[in-house]
Amino acid sequence: MPGSVLAVDIGGTKFAAALVDPDGDVQAARRVATPPGGDAHTLWKTLDALVSAVVGDTPVAGVGIGCGGPMTWPDGAVSPLNMPGWRAFPLRERLAARFPGVPVRIHNDAVCVAAAEHWRGAGQGSANMLGMVVSTGVGGGLILGGRLIDGGTGNAGHIGHVVVDPDGPACGCGGRGCLEAVARGPGLAAWAVEQGWVPGRAADPGGAYAEATAATGRQLALDAAAGDGIALAAMRRAGRAVGLAIASAAHLCDLDVVTIGGGLSQAGPLLFEPLEEALRAHVRLEFARRVRVVPAALGQDAGLVGAAALILAADRYWSPGS
Amino acid sequence: MPGSVLAVDIGGTKFAAALVDPDGDVQAARRVATPPGGDAHTLWKTLDALVSAVVGDTPVAGVGIGCGGPMTWPDGAVSPLNMPGWRAFPLRERLAARFPGVPVRIHNDAVCVAAAEHWRGAGQGSANMLGMVVSTGVGGGLILGGRLIDGGTGNAGHIGHVVVDPDGPACGCGGRGCLEAVARGPGLAAWAVEQGWVPGRAADPGGAYAEATAATGRQLALDAAAGDGIALAAMRRAGRAVGLAIASAAHLCDLDVVTIGGGLSQAGPLLFEPLEEALRAHVRLEFARRVRVVPAALGQDAGLVGAAALILAADRYWSPGS
Repeated sequence: MPGSVLAVDIGGTKFAAALVDPDGDVQAARRVATPPGGDAHTLWKTLDALVSAVVGDTPVAGVGIGCGGPMTWPDGAVSPLNMPGWRAFPLRERLAARFPGVPVRIHNDAVCVAAAEHWRGAGQGSANMLGMVVSTGVGGGLILGGRLIDGGTGNAGHIGHVVVDPDGPACGCGGRGCLEAVARGPGLAAWAVEQGWVPGRAADPGGAYAEATAATGRQLALDAAAGDGIALAAMRRAGRAVGLAIASAAHLCDLDVVTIGGGLSQAGPLLFEPLEEALRAHVRLEFARRVRVVPAALGQDAGLVGAAALILAADRYWSPGS
Repeated sequence: MPGSVLAVDIGGTKFAAALVDPDGDVQAARRVATPPGGDAHTLWKTLDALVSAVVGDTPVAGVGIGCGGPMTWPDGAVSPLNMPGWRAFPLRERLAARFPGVPVRIHNDAVCVAAAEHWRGAGQGSANMLGMVVSTGVGGGLILGGRLIDGGTGNAGHIGHVVVDPDGPACGCGGRGCLEAVARGPGLAAWAVEQGWVPGRAADPGGAYAEATAATGRQLALDAAAGDGIALAAMRRAGRAVGLAIASAAHLCDLDVVTIGGGLSQAGPLLFEPLEEALRAHVRLEFARRVRVVPAALGQDAGLVGAAALILAADRYWSPGS
């Protein structure tokens, strides 16, 4: 379709690419596993092949990229935490050389998800939105006054490092008590194991669960759904932490809506009910009580849609240096 | 001076008005005590007389108003918490009728202070700033991407209700553990009295302090400066809470600078040192470590300068409905 853009979504577990038409519809999406332990060249070759397969001979109007942080922005030299093969890798430059003559833009992957939910997902029609991803990490992006907020270095939206428990667990960032330290899947699973959680026992009581089942956030959500008491407590712990962080964000930014995606959001009411309980206990001023928390709508395509929005809806989602 | 605007700053203890020239210089400022217990009419008459004395026969290019919240915004029907005489009082409308044919704009008083510090104060040159006031209450305003952020209802910037201690003291907002609940002057003084603080003893060891000296935030700062152990602990308590809230805001908004004004900021290093200690323990990611915390520069004129900015620098500080 004329005017389509190439969207790329770079994560620690998979690379995704697709053409996205001007309406935000994803076409010809392809995914490959991120080469484990790949060096810079291997990673690039993998991406290059993926992109070639998606684009073929189609001319593209631009390239939008979402990638795990940190990165320099808007230059786009990336150092994704969980991809040691790329350190200050000039990802945006490489793709710009590969697609000369069109705009090539990059943003944090969670920021892209937020832009997508605002443009085409659960945040449509709101001018003041926080888009969250609660998964292996906890990330987000912020839309205020109808526009994506970048902050001084493109890092606005880091809801995962809002402090929810000042003396809480150590965080990967070097701080303590960040939302991410409490609510990220692996952190939550580790906490549950400490409390005596046996992964898989509740979800498969007659099965050969012992030692065979990994203690992951996903398993924790399954076990909570199956009624495991510790897993349920873990979901309450996560929900409460997310609710507290949203309360702080709602006061600071006067939000209309918060969208929540990512693996842990699959737990549904097991996460959202304690979330709402904590949130409502802490937002009492009329303006803050307006905030609605809703599940994200776009699923695994969100990162691609948001990357495309950097090109296709640049008036709202692209304003570096403003 | 041609092009000057009338600036009005409405607070629970005083009304202030002035002409502000296009460079942001305050001329002919006048202040009167807020009539204690005044009804709606008395309050308006007091303001009307003040404004008449300031303006005289000078034509004004517009009117900017800062007022304590809450209010409907941008309509400007005000219900300041500490002025029971005005409930849904149409302050903006009344001043618009008094000054026909020119723009008449209103914002929260702490938002005006933040706009002032960004326009002409300690935040000049930064595009991403939080302006705080730590006093009887704790308020603020947010500038991102070089523009004042309003949020959905004009209430963005409420840093005082960022949660710093989830199980902490009850807050006037109805929530719990908000920054304001911990760090507002009266809350801090009440905490110190509970710990055994005797107001004035340290600052005036030979004096007739007992029972005669009020337990205020200001006295607490004086006693801390004089070496009172409990007063010093109170300043550490406040500084730590402010530092935690700034850490959360810096992560969420990718801030360059935070300015701190208001009575408690007069405590200087006694407040800023524990603030920095808590902040630095919680901001470890490179982008968040950039944040600088500085004293506000404009003093008691800040509210007037910021109210004027709603007219004189509207491109940056006035965008309702965007």
